[in-house]
This record gives sequence, C-alpha cells and structure tokens, in this order.
Amino acid sequence: MGDSFGQLFRIMSFGESHGPGLGVVIEGCPAGIPIGAPDIQAELDRRRPGQSKLVTPRKEKDQVEILSGIFEGHTLGTAIGLLIRNADVDSSKYEDFKDKYRPSHADYTYDAKYGRRDWRGGGRASARETAARVAAGAVAKRVLSTRCPEICVVGWVAQVADVTAAVDPSSVTPDAVDAHPTRCPDAKAAADMETAIQEARKARDTVGGVVSCVVRGVPAGWGEPVFDKLEADLAKAMLSIPAAKGVEVGSGFAGTLLRGSQHNDPFVMSDGEVRTTSNHSGGIQGGISNGEDIFLRVAFKPVATIFQSQDTVTSDGRATTISPKGRHDPCVLPRAVPIVEAMVSLVLCDHMLRQRARQP
Amino acid sequence: MGDSFGQLFRIMSFGESHGPGLGVVIEGCPAGIPIGAPDIQAELDRRRPGQSKLVTPRKEKDQVEILSGIFEGHTLGTAIGLLIRNADVDSSKYEDFKDKYRPSHADYTYDAKYGRRDWRGGGRASARETAARVAAGAVAKRVLSTRCPEICVVGWVAQVADVTAAVDPSSVTPDAVDAHPTRCPDAKAAADMETAIQEARKARDTVGGVVSCVVRGVPAGWGEPVFDKLEADLAKAMLSIPAAKGVEVGSGFAGTLLRGSQHNDPFVMSDGEVRTTSNHSGGIQGGISNGEDIFLRVAFKPVATIFQSQDTVTSDGRATTISPKGRHDPCVLPRAVPIVEAMVSLVLCDHMLRQRARQP
Amino acid sequence: MGDSFGQLFRIMSFGESHGPGLGVVIEGCPAGIPIGAPDIQAELDRRRPGQSKLVTPRKEKDQVEILSGIFEGHTLGTAIGLLIRNADVDSSKYEDFKDKYRPSHADYTYDAKYGRRDWRGGGRASARETAARVAAGAVAKRVLSTRCPEICVVGWVAQVADVTAAVDPSSVTPDAVDAHPTRCPDAKAAADMETAIQEARKARDTVGGVVSCVVRGVPAGWGEPVFDKLEADLAKAMLSIPAAKGVEVGSGFAGTLLRGSQHNDPFVMSDGEVRTTSNHSGGIQGGISNGEDIFLRVAFKPVATIFQSQDTVTSDGRATTISPKGRHDPCVLPRAVPIVEAMVSLVLCDHMLRQRARQP
Amino acid sequence: MGDSFGQLFRIMSFGESHGPGLGVVIEGCPAGIPIGAPDIQAELDRRRPGQSKLVTPRKEKDQVEILSGIFEGHTLGTAIGLLIRNADVDSSKYEDFKDKYRPSHADYTYDAKYGRRDWRGGGRASARETAARVAAGAVAKRVLSTRCPEICVVGWVAQVADVTAAVDPSSVTPDAVDAHPTRCPDAKAAADMETAIQEARKARDTVGGVVSCVVRGVPAGWGEPVFDKLEADLAKAMLSIPAAKGVEVGSGFAGTLLRGSQHNDPFVMSDGEVRTTSNHSGGIQGGISNGEDIFLRVAFKPVATIFQSQDTVTSDGRATTISPKGRHDPCVLPRAVPIVEAMVSLVLCDHMLRQRARQP
Repeated sequence: MGDSFGQLFRIMSFGESHGPGLGVVIEGCPAGIPIGAPDIQAELDRRRPGQSKLVTPRKEKDQVEILSGIFEGHTLGTAIGLLIRNADVDSSKYEDFKDKYRPSHADYTYDAKYGRRDWRGGGRASARETAARVAAGAVAKRVLSTRCPEICVVGWVAQVADVTAAVDPSSVTPDAVDAHPTRCPDAKAAADMETAIQEARKARDTVGGVVSCVVRGVPAGWGEPVFDKLEADLAKAMLSIPAAKGVEVGSGFAGTLLRGSQHNDPFVMSDGEVRTTSNHSGGIQGGISNGEDIFLRVAFKPVATIFQSQDTVTSDGRATTISPKGRHDPCVLPRAVPIVEAMVSLVLCDHMLRQRARQP
Repeated sequence: MGDSFGQLFRIMSFGESHGPGLGVVIEGCPAGIPIGAPDIQAELDRRRPGQSKLVTPRKEKDQVEILSGIFEGHTLGTAIGLLIRNADVDSSKYEDFKDKYRPSHADYTYDAKYGRRDWRGGGRASARETAARVAAGAVAKRVLSTRCPEICVVGWVAQVADVTAAVDPSSVTPDAVDAHPTRCPDAKAAADMETAIQEARKARDTVGGVVSCVVRGVPAGWGEPVFDKLEADLAKAMLSIPAAKGVEVGSGFAGTLLRGSQHNDPFVMSDGEVRTTSNHSGGIQGGISNGEDIFLRVAFKPVATIFQSQDTVTSDGRATTISPKGRHDPCVLPRAVPIVEAMVSLVLCDHMLRQRARQP
Repeated sequence: MGDSFGQLFRIMSFGESHGPGLGVVIEGCPAGIPIGAPDIQAELDRRRPGQSKLVTPRKEKDQVEILSGIFEGHTLGTAIGLLIRNADVDSSKYEDFKDKYRPSHADYTYDAKYGRRDWRGGGRASARETAARVAAGAVAKRVLSTRCPEICVVGWVAQVADVTAAVDPSSVTPDAVDAHPTRCPDAKAAADMETAIQEARKARDTVGGVVSCVVRGVPAGWGEPVFDKLEADLAKAMLSIPAAKGVEVGSGFAGTLLRGSQHNDPFVMSDGEVRTTSNHSGGIQGGISNGEDIFLRVAFKPVATIFQSQDTVTSDGRATTISPKGRHDPCVLPRAVPIVEAMVSLVLCDHMLRQRARQP
Repeated sequence: MGDSFGQLFRIMSFGESHGPGLGVVIEGCPAGIPIGAPDIQAELDRRRPGQSKLVTPRKEKDQVEILSGIFEGHTLGTAIGLLIRNADVDSSKYEDFKDKYRPSHADYTYDAKYGRRDWRGGGRASARETAARVAAGAVAKRVLSTRCPEICVVGWVAQVADVTAAVDPSSVTPDAVDAHPTRCPDAKAAADMETAIQEARKARDTVGGVVSCVVRGVPAGWGEPVFDKLEADLAKAMLSIPAAKGVEVGSGFAGTLLRGSQHNDPFVMSDGEVRTTSNHSGGIQGGISNGEDIFLRVAFKPVATIFQSQDTVTSDGRATTISPKGRHDPCVLPRAVPIVEAMVSLVLCDHMLRQRARQP
C-alpha cells in the first residue's frame, strides 16, 4: 500500500535511492498510443540531478529502459514496465550517520513504522523516487495529448524564498519555463531566485518556495462527485510529493477573504460554449472541470538536508549531533516542476478514462 | 466512482438533497467497538442545519437510523448501513431556476458530465451529503478512541472573512470549540466573526474562512510511503469537502519563507521517547506520523449562493440573470468543523488499520 | 472489506437477516439509463421467499425503495441507494441455539473471525443478503440492455440431486426458465427435480445441484489480461454466492479429458465476423470474450439446515446436539437462478465499462 | 487494469513473452521478513521450462533480480521489485503466422480488444507471465511461513487425461510431489501420466488434467463475508491462470449429489479446539476458514498449441490453415503446480493481513 496511485490509469512504483534501481509499472494505459523511450527520457532529463549548478551534482543519467507494454512504437494496452538503474551511488557518505535520525527527514518515522530501513541515501524516502513519477507522467502526458490534443500542462516556479514571480497562467509556455535553470518564466524574478538559492547554498542552508501549475484545454465534465473531486485527487497527488506541505486550487487561501459576490464566477456564452468571466474556481466546480483553466499552487518546504551541525538523537535513544554530507539540492523548486506536471498529468489521465468509461 | 472513500475503513455514501434520504455504508469496521445511534447523532447534531442563527434555517433533524452492522451495542465487523431521511424538503424554491446555472455551483458541470441532474436543492452536489460523512466519521472516531484512547481530534474556526483567531493547538478542547456558535474558541475573535457573518447576511452576501484541525495522540508510524502519505490522504479528504479550495499541513505556505535551518525540527529524547522541539512538520515526516501533533488548515471559499441578482446562462445557452431563493448559510465555517473532524477521523482510522495489518 | 464488489460498476451491500433491513449502494452507474423500482422489483420477485411450495415459506415481499441516484425515470450517474426492509422476522426460532454452532453454517467461523455475531437468522451470513445482489444486478442488467441491446443473460437449473436437464444454451429463453417453479426449462427433468425436492423435504433433508448460465451477445474484447480475466471475475462472483462450491467455464472439468486437437475451437469467417465452429472455450479466450456465447456452470451444495438432530458444539466448547427449526428451503437451486444471473450481469457491466474507458 | 492482484498484499505484474523481460512489483509486504533471491529462485526453478523431458525445451534460466524492497536479507516494508530477463527468445517461429489467429489462443481476442498485439510468442497472453506469479508467490509463501509457521501449501497433479491419482491431502508432502517430473505423488499414476503425455506428444497433440491443492494449518477466521469469501478469491486466483477452466472447493461438483445430512460437517471438540469430523466444506464455511484443511481442485484444458494443421482465419478475414512451430509443452500440469501454489499463497497472505488489520 502506498506504492500505487490512480484508479484506471494506475501505477505502482518501486526503488530505493541506493539500490539497484527504481521504476514503475503502469496498468490501464490505452492501446495504440504512439510513444517511445525518447519521449519518456525528455521528461526525465528535466528532473534529473546535475542539469544545472542550482541542483545536486549527483551524476545520474536516469536512463529509462522500457521492459514491456510498448511494441512497434505504440502502447499495447498491457502493463508498461519502466526501469531506471541507479548509477552514481555513493553510500559511504551515509555510513557516518546510519544510526542518527536526520532532522525533518523520514529516518525516524520509517524506523517507527517498519522497525528497519535502508539508510543509504534515504532509501525509499529519498526524493529519488520521483523519477518513477516523472516517467509514468510522461506516458500520461502522451495519452492526454493523443486523445485530447488541446490539453497543455504547464508548471513553473512561482516563488523561491520571498521572491515571487509575475506569470500569466493563460499564456505561459513550457519553453518559457525551461528557458531559465530556475524554471521561473519571469526573467527578473528568475534572476532574484537564482541569487537567493546561491546565497542559501553559501550559507550551507536551503530555501523553499511555490510551484504553480496550469492546465489549459481540459473539457468540462472530468472529475467525480463527493470524494473523488478533481481538486481532491489533485491535492492528494501534490501532497504526496516529497517536501510538499500545502496546495490550493483556484483562489485558494486568498479566496477566503472575498465575499461570495466577489468570488462567484458568472457564466456567459462564448462561441456557443458555456464559459465564465472570472476563474476563482480554478477550472473546477463541484469537483468537476468546467472547461476553464485548471490552476493550482503547491508549497514546498526548504530542503531538510543542510550542511550545518544539528541536534538530534540516535536510533538507540542517545542525544547527538549530525553534520550531513553528500550531494544535495539547496532548493528543490526547479526540479519539482516536472514532478508537479507529472502528477497532474496522472490525475487528469485517470479522470479522462473514468469519464470515458460511462459516456454513451 | 467518487462515492466511496478509504482503503480498509471504507465508506460509500449516497443521497440527493431533496430525495428520500441520504446515507452511508461502512465496510471494514473492526468488530466489538461499542457504539449506538446516540454516538452518531451527537456528531450529526453539530453539523445539522438550524442549530443557531448563524446557519441555514432548513429544519432537518438529521435523525440517523442504523440499518445493519451494529448489534447489542457493538459493531459486528460487517457492513454498517446508516440512513438519514430528508424531512424538510421544499423544492419549489428551485423550480424557478431549474434551467439556469447558478454561478460557482455544480449545476453546469453536472450537466456537462452526466447530461442530466437533479436540480432540486443542488441534488448530489448539495453540501447536504456531508451528513453522511459526519455519520461515518462518528464511527471512525469511536474506533479510534476505542483502540487508541489517547487520540483527540479537535477542529475549530480559525478565520472568518479577515477575522483571525489565536488558538493554541496543543491545548484547545472540543468543549471550548462548541461553546460558541461560531465554533471559534477565541472569544474575542468569535464575537468579531459573528459580526462579520451577520453583516454579510444583511448585505445578502456570504463570507469564507479557514478551519484548523489538530490531532493529538497519534502514535509514530501511521501513513504510507510515496503516494499514500498521511498528508496526501488528509489533503484529498479536505479538498473533497464542498467549498474547500486549499489545505496546508504543518508550516504550509508560510513555511516556504523559512530556511532549512529554521524549519527543521530537531530531535530530542523526552521520557524515553523520540520527540521534536518544534513542529513545523505538523506531526508528519516522509508521509508518516512522528508522534507529534498533526496540524492542518483548510480554506473555504465564500458560499456560492448569494441573494443577489447575478449574470448567468440557461442550460440551452441563453444569457439570463438569477436571483437565488431558498435557505442558505451565509458562512459554512461553523458547520464545517464537524465535517473536517469527520474526514480527518476517517483518514486516521483507515491508516491505523493499514498499519496494524502488517505489524508483527 | 468483503461487502463491496466490482471496479467501475461497484456495489457495497449491507444487512443482517433479522435486522431492520438490507440494501446496496451502487457507484459508477452511467447516467441516463431508464429504470424504475418495478424493474428492480421484478428481479427481486424471482428470488424472494414464498414464491412457490418448493421454497421457504418466509413471507418477505422484498419491496425495494430507491433512496437516491434515480430521478425522473433515469439514473443520474450518482450513487444509487436501494433499501429492502425485513418484514417477516421471527428470531424466536433461533433463541434455542444461539450458543450452538449449526453444522456447515457460518456460526463458528464468524465467532472465530469477529468474536461475536448476530445469531438471529444467520445474521450477515444468511443467504438473505442475496436480495441486495439481485437488486444491484437488476440495475446492471438494465445498463447492459440499454448499451448493448443484443446481450441476453439466461440462467437455469441444470441439475438437482442426480436429475440432470437437457437444455440448449444457444436458444433457451428466460420465459422457458420461469415457466416451472424449479426454473428448469426441460419439462421432464423439471418434474423429476420437483419430486426429488419434495422427497428430500419429506425426509427432513435437503438437496444440491447445478445452475447453468449462458450469456449471448457479448461483443469480442471484454475482459482483461492476466488477473482480471473474464472467467476469473465470473468465478469469484459465482463462488461468492452462498452454498456455491464449484464453477466451470466452457468445457470445464469435462474438457480435461479431451486432447488439444478435440478441444481447440477453429476460427471461421461468418457474415464478415470472426467466429468459431465449436465453443469449448465458453466464449472466453485468454480471459477476453471472443463473441461466442459465454457459458458457465455453478455447483451448489445441499442446504445446511436440515430438520434432523445433529452433533455439534456450543460456543463455550461443550458437545451438544442441535435440531434446527425455522423456515428453510429444501433446495436453493430455483432461487439461485436470479442470483447467478445478477452476479453475471454485475461482472459483465463492470467489464463493459472497463473496456469502454480505454477505447478510442 | 488486470495486471494487479490482491488488496493488502498487492502485486502488479508486467512483461511480454519475447520482450526484454517480465517481472512483478509487490506492495504491502510486511517488513522484517527474512528472504533472499535464492528463496524466490527455488520456486521459479520449479516452474521454469526445460526442467524435464515432459515440458517445453525453451531454455530460460528465469534468473530473478531483486530491484528493491529487500535489504540486508529482510523485507523493508517498501515495494519489492522483481525482474526476470527473457533470454532464450526466438521470435522467428512466429513470423509465419503473425497474421493468423491461432485457435483457442488469445490472438484474436487481443486484437479485438486492443486493435494490436505483440505477436511474438503470444506476447502478454503467453503463459510465460506466470513466472511473475511464482516469484511473487514465493514472497507470499515466506510471509505466511514467517508469521504462521504451521501453514503448508501443497499442490500436486491429480489427473492427466483420464489418469487419476490417489493422494491423501492430509499427509501429502512437497517432497513427494517434486519427486517425479509429473508432480504426481502417486507413483503408479505418475508413471501412467508420463505415458499419456508422451503419447500425446508423439501424436503431435496435447492433454489436460487437474491440479489439486491443500493448505494445512490455516487458523479459523480468514476470509471475508459476502463478496470476498475465501473460496471466491481462491476461485478468481485459479481461473486467472492460463488454461484453467474450472475450480471446486471442498466437495465441489461431486457434493451436489449428496444430501444435506451427508454433506454437513459435524462439529466436535478436539484438544480444546473446535473441529469437524468430516470436511466436505473444504476448510471454508460462510467464506471464512474454519481451521480444517483448505482443499481445492483446478481443471486445466489441453494446451492449445498442437503441431497439427488447423483451420483458422487471418487478421484481415481470410480463411487459412495454421501449423504451429516453436517450443511447447504437451501438458502444462507439472509446471502448473507451483503456479497454483503461488496463487493460493498470494490469496492467503492477503487475507491474513486483512484479518490482522482489524483484530484487537
């Protein structure tokens, strides 16, 4: 339990940070979707370590191998197995504190839960597992773009520390996002973010921030009433990402300050379609897409691994200090963008299939 | 799909606002839990309409009938069927706009999804469905309190419009919350919130706000790695509640402004237990409870039904205006507290069983 | 767990034999299916007690009440709640042996599992729960007949004790089955079966038998590879029915005596369609329907309640004897036919939706 | 969908016969179970091709690689990834009939379902996928034997063609089963079976048969009421195995000929335990284990691949003949034994966890 996600487009992921490898199996992918390893690799390359000086220097090519489910350039409809080998594994840095609980990591909680853990590189709790999400998300993206070509999922870094970006969700493009290593499409903010990240790194510290994501082109009618509302499934997807501590859809927390008369989105007809003149709902009403842009924001706490001495305890209950070594990101935000997009794509692909299942 | 929730403690709810009734079936409840209709009724009474002048005057006793699964004062281990009849149904107020899409309601999205809808009182999309959540949550609460007596789930209204409360999560009590009709345990803020609600009502308008919830006494080890992290399942639960648009766990969005050295929660030994000296993590690390208080906040948008004329369209695509009538809450926050507590209890009960399943 | 069934067309049932009532909630039913209480009642009337002298005289009208999900004569797409009150409840007959384990009933195993049980009329283990299956199955049948009008599900009694019927699966009709109280469409065998049942009743004993079921008109392509093969899901559905102890699809156990050259079903083209000239596969190949008639057989053991003194033990471990009283069927086969049909319909409706979800 | 199995001990398998490899991911395995690759390999060796002259000469070592979830000789509680590379792949034999539907194979139904298929070696529909079942089943077996050391799962070949074995389920041992290449522990029958298989092979034909399986040592209380009865989940597991066409539990079809007075299993006290003096129930009553031996039988049709010319059609609808080549088993029964045991172990392990989840 906990290693799988989705109802109809369902994935099960596996892999520890310093084990032989990690991967994911996808069941329920429709047949006949054109896709190959390069399509998946392109998304993995956006997430992988070492892509810029802003992220961890761990050298992982994150090369994906397709084990099953794709034949002659198309999905077969059968389970798709994807494998990524761990290559640049150096567990020696972790030997020193294999019995010490790193603050705000999952060392203690894994021990409490399981009675044991793979201490090398964080084991299963390492954010390295997100490579499997991105690989599966690449398939989901391709299913969406094949079946609903108008859909476009775009995430970007909206905030780092106290630097915020001004971005128009209705027009931002993937290219604009990827143009800067911060993945912030507001050039001025991007430069300030880079400074903030470098300052934190010099201080042997880390910073957090916010990723925003918009999905344009989702037709009205996706999402289910009551428990599987589209924003509910998106919220679960977002808070399952390592270091995520908050999510908001549409107006979110800011919307609590508006009155109903300000917040309601009036309906109008436009080119024969029902549209709204504002979008405080973030494209979802009653849990179901209304055809407007779906908009969400995800809060990421600062990275827990800081290169400073911190108080902690050992697994046998003695007070001690810890001074982490290894290779780490001073800020996860730039690499979080493809992860957010992957999880959003997985949720949407699942709900597309759920809606198609019952349509006449 | 969408009417059920949970993995091991699993519920399926049903019911339209103006149909014969609504209810819920619970499967997977352990046997031998002492419970009766009054236990469930007590929670329903906290949610039901007409309990104070701050909420809708719809007169629903929300009387629960136990149809199965409880015998001689204890759960049998078999499916528990709970039924609540709709009593004070007046669909005439909805006749006028059965073909008009109420702004920021689910009228349009249900039509887009299903091609039809029960227009009476919002049908399945009415927040009346939350009675089923509260009934099931009452059973979950009782399972938790029987198996883990130290667990205490307390929600409260933390914000209404721009009025915010000062409440100490480590000591707030259910009695303090229920002492005021706003369900805000900060007396000064409660009075201001009441004023804000009454002002909105007079302006034929509505207000939103924030519900906070703390869970004390959860042992370390609940929650699953990767996708079913405790905060992920809580986030889904929260954003499945009608009108919820955001959720944060622990430091949430505010935490994005801290550096890692400020945000990390140092471990210490206390009375032989591993504890942390701060709780920015909100009691969850790596998706798994660490024994500290679990803390979350949920944003609720202002109620969509305002007694003002608004622009909208008809189901056959003509521009029109709508002036809602009927009985409605100017602010859902006070009634949202038992709903938040119910959903939190359902998630925790589920994860308690998941953790017990695999322990030696 | 255990009270729900299906993936996309998913039901959760509840109810003890002598509690207030029993019922079922259906989630995932497509919207716009024309159906009303009489459609469901018609199937319930085929299952209900007291319909002939061959079955238990318990007087239950099994009147279904639709609680939700159906509006203006059509399904809404939301959860359908169905309730059947228990009316003719007489628990006094069970008082005498509330502490004795009835042989080959579930009294002991429920106690072993749950530590308690509702001893009145068998509680949750009573075959009375099958009314909920039949009610849900009636909805499934209607969904199938609306979306795939060519589909016809026909079950019949193929064997009672050692009396076997000669029936042609390719042409047998529901009317022919219901024409005789045994639900055997072979008149000669039906008469002999009736005699066998009456003889067993006179001997205060019971008999078992076999129900066959054919489904004509299923298109090729339903069913999933590997674990959710159509025959696997049908087998689960069949062996979940009380008293069922075996199931076979197509050639079944008899097919083990054939050689491959005799068993293989050669393909031919017929009216532009791929067909087979024999049907040892029972309409399913590799777990997926091939367009031929789906054929299965289900073995039912003789009813466990016999009006004879039997050796058993008490719940506190003392040897004793038991002489059941109450109202019971000497043979469940006639009433099992609508149950088998209901479960087959639920499986097919689920797989129809699963297949539709992924088609272009 | 269709590639995963189980609720709490849940597997997702993948792999085509002639693709890069096949494998399985297991989620929900308890932590701390001692296991290593040799334990899994031992079961795979019982299933693999080429182990005797009775089975296909395809040379596959079926070497398992553990990708995750096992560390320092014990399960971590996290997802276990297992990979088996395909080594001895020869697709050339399939080139000739890539457009012809092999009778009683899944070629046609996969095309009908997906619009495409991997024609090499049967693709996903090849029985080669059962290696993944056996690998996962080996882990399940180890979990069972660690948590419930008294449990023993023993399958054997009970019938080949018309040769039936006399075997005592209460005492048969795994060693006795594996002593003969037929996996029939009745020496006389084993010899006759071998003859029957060799005769079929010489006739370029195939034979079917029956695998029996007993599970000793299951405590009372496993299995769930209504839909997830132990025999229901076992039936699904069995009929998901390629070529299985029937299953019976306890008395099965033969039990339909008994009267209730003959079939009922009287309870007695024995060494302070509730036991039965006969076991027509096959160890399961009301869907829940009663502490007696669980007994089931599975019918396997003769292998579809026969080396004879057969009538069939092409994928574009022309009549043709087909003369299969390649490497095939004349009888799957000997290799089916570890597969049956694996699936039985998966079901039991799942139900053990389900029962533990709710116990006090």
